Amino acid sequence: MKFFEDIGVGEISDIGRHTFTAEDIKGFAARFDPQPFHLDEAAAARSHFGRLCASGWHTACVWMRLLIDFRRREDEERRARGEGVAQLGPSPGFRDLKWLKPVYVGDTISYATEVVETRGLSSRPGWGMISVCNTGVNQHGEPVMSFISSVLVECRDRGPQGS
Amino acid sequence: MKFFEDIGVGEISDIGRHTFTAEDIKGFAARFDPQPFHLDEAAAARSHFGRLCASGWHTACVWMRLLIDFRRREDEERRARGEGVAQLGPSPGFRDLKWLKPVYVGDTISYATEVVETRGLSSRPGWGMISVCNTGVNQHGEPVMSFISSVLVECRDRGPQGS
Repeated sequence: MKFFEDIGVGEISDIGRHTFTAEDIKGFAARFDPQPFHLDEAAAARSHFGRLCASGWHTACVWMRLLIDFRRREDEERRARGEGVAQLGPSPGFRDLKWLKPVYVGDTISYATEVVETRGLSSRPGWGMISVCNTGVNQHGEPVMSFISSVLVECRDRGPQGS
Repeated sequence: MKFFEDIGVGEISDIGRHTFTAEDIKGFAARFDPQPFHLDEAAAARSHFGRLCASGWHTACVWMRLLIDFRRREDEERRARGEGVAQLGPSPGFRDLKWLKPVYVGDTISYATEVVETRGLSSRPGWGMISVCNTGVNQHGEPVMSFISSVLVECRDRGPQGS
């Protein structure tokens, strides 16, 4: 991760893409969201969705996975260039998650993040809070999901224990 | 599900509880949130969490599973009593998800829902929208997660195709 001071509003990162297979959709749904339209093609055809589609939680969890992989790649590149890598603090949560369109079997979702707010924290010297708008867009260019998440990011200048 | 007309603001449902084991936490994290403090006890001890703890997405996905199981039990009981069962429409999303405390290995989280808003939809006759505040509380009585979700619920009186 970049240090807090180096993060600017408007920065966009393409974090990766994922194709949702039937096996993938059914496997997640069997464990966490066992509704017929996520589990069975015939039942999905009779539902308001019309076809097998992924749990909205599945779409969101894939975002999380791709973000972790993306940050790891970025940090490895920073270390390879001899740059410092900022620590992340806990995420207090997120807001306004919207499932805008169903994610159907075979859809490829491209995920991106855009920094929408940065602010220093007087309550936690050495850390800043960033808010990021996260989106998933299908292969037709249609947004399928968006939400805003926040996370604490280490500042470059946080005193003797910060490096 | 109850029909829209039968749902009132303030109704609370205990939907179930789940104990997060180390295997459970690591299995979810390996797939969707591979951060050291969700994957490895020693790494977690060195992190800001101090102990192995569940991905916030895991805590939320368990809520989804328990809700589906709860609704299914309720609907079976309604059918057994000869009552009608309302259909649910898609969920447009949710808001204000807060991860309030870590969920540590061995914690048992009790999940509940409380109806916070009901409104008819002029744009979709025969359906209403309910908003529900969802919470998870650990065995010490501490809230660990809350968020507000919305879903479309069928009205009892939605014309000839509604029954």
